Amino acid sequence: MRTAFHPRLVAIDDQVRDMCGVVRGAMHAATAALSETDLGLAESVIENDAQLDTSAHEVEDRIFHLLAQHQPVAQNLRFLLAALHTAAALERMGDLAVHVAKTTRMRYPMPVIPTDLRGLVADMGAIASQMITTADVALERGDPSTARVLRDLDREMHRLHRELFIITCSPAWEHGVPAAVDISLLSRSYELFADHAVTIGERSVHVIPQQVNGSVNLR
Amino acid sequence: MRTAFHPRLVAIDDQVRDMCGVVRGAMHAATAALSETDLGLAESVIENDAQLDTSAHEVEDRIFHLLAQHQPVAQNLRFLLAALHTAAALERMGDLAVHVAKTTRMRYPMPVIPTDLRGLVADMGAIASQMITTADVALERGDPSTARVLRDLDREMHRLHRELFIITCSPAWEHGVPAAVDISLLSRSYELFADHAVTIGERSVHVIPQQVNGSVNLR
Repeated sequence: MRTAFHPRLVAIDDQVRDMCGVVRGAMHAATAALSETDLGLAESVIENDAQLDTSAHEVEDRIFHLLAQHQPVAQNLRFLLAALHTAAALERMGDLAVHVAKTTRMRYPMPVIPTDLRGLVADMGAIASQMITTADVALERGDPSTARVLRDLDREMHRLHRELFIITCSPAWEHGVPAAVDISLLSRSYELFADHAVTIGERSVHVIPQQVNGSVNLR
Repeated sequence: MRTAFHPRLVAIDDQVRDMCGVVRGAMHAATAALSETDLGLAESVIENDAQLDTSAHEVEDRIFHLLAQHQPVAQNLRFLLAALHTAAALERMGDLAVHVAKTTRMRYPMPVIPTDLRGLVADMGAIASQMITTADVALERGDPSTARVLRDLDREMHRLHRELFIITCSPAWEHGVPAAVDISLLSRSYELFADHAVTIGERSVHVIPQQVNGSVNLR
């Protein structure tokens, strides 16, 4: 029973970490498509999202069967419930990358972001990348310091969101209403993406089971 | 063991259903505060949100201990995993009601919504109310027809979101950029609220355990 349990636990951990990589790639590509007005790249983000939805359902299914058949307790149970939340959060983060990609597609061939704001939006994209990378490290190590790093990055993301909000709503704004609306909704998607990353970091603290942590020999 | 298990299952179901009622009240109050520019009501939504966060953590804790101590399988396990997702979704729906309330507070004493758009925003609020009420029925009955109703209401919510988007981005828009930005972000919060309600409906299909469904004598 134990030999069947450990590889299945590791397989769930692997799949969640793979989802993390897919989400990182999706948000990176969505931000690049936005910056470079690249329709093909935006389309690929939208198409690839189905893969994340499928993975989230598979993770959930695997967790259900592992709980039903092995009835894990303590640390292993805690890990599986955290993995369930993480998979759901990653699925929603993929949806937010799709929202960014769809905005590029909607305005194509016009760029969404006025030239003078590209730096700020690129900063949001860069923080989103750092956050999903840090969330992945949190999943790997369950270390409280990664949760703190995520909260700091989240504060910076909220600051950028407020800065963009103030710029678009100032009397000096000269790019018109549609650009202001697009930027506000995009900025909100990055902010929600950051919130999910924080949640992943918080949930992963102290939940790494021995079987996954010490699983070098199992892989 | 069974006598201890059933009341605990029912207690989790009760607490999730209570959270549903709190979320319904929060979004109803947030919409009323927005329509009537009522600062006190907006503040109460913001303050009361802590209660939802506490409940979500309690539900999660109860589920963890029930899984660890009773190792339920089949329908009961499925119900508990769905309850875990539902509590997390309700917590996020509460955050979206807080976002609506904070927009009212930010612009107070000015109203957020221009007079000619109050009808559309009121419609979004009404659909949000119907959706959380329907999600509650879905939790009670696990009936696939409620999931279908939720998807129909969700389509209507997306239609209203697009309608507001088109109005704010049209050349005829005369209320300025800040109003357009506020309305877009509010409308997005209602849309995300609807998405969560759909997820609750989908997850609740066929997961009502006998112990909860037939629990009249336990209550």
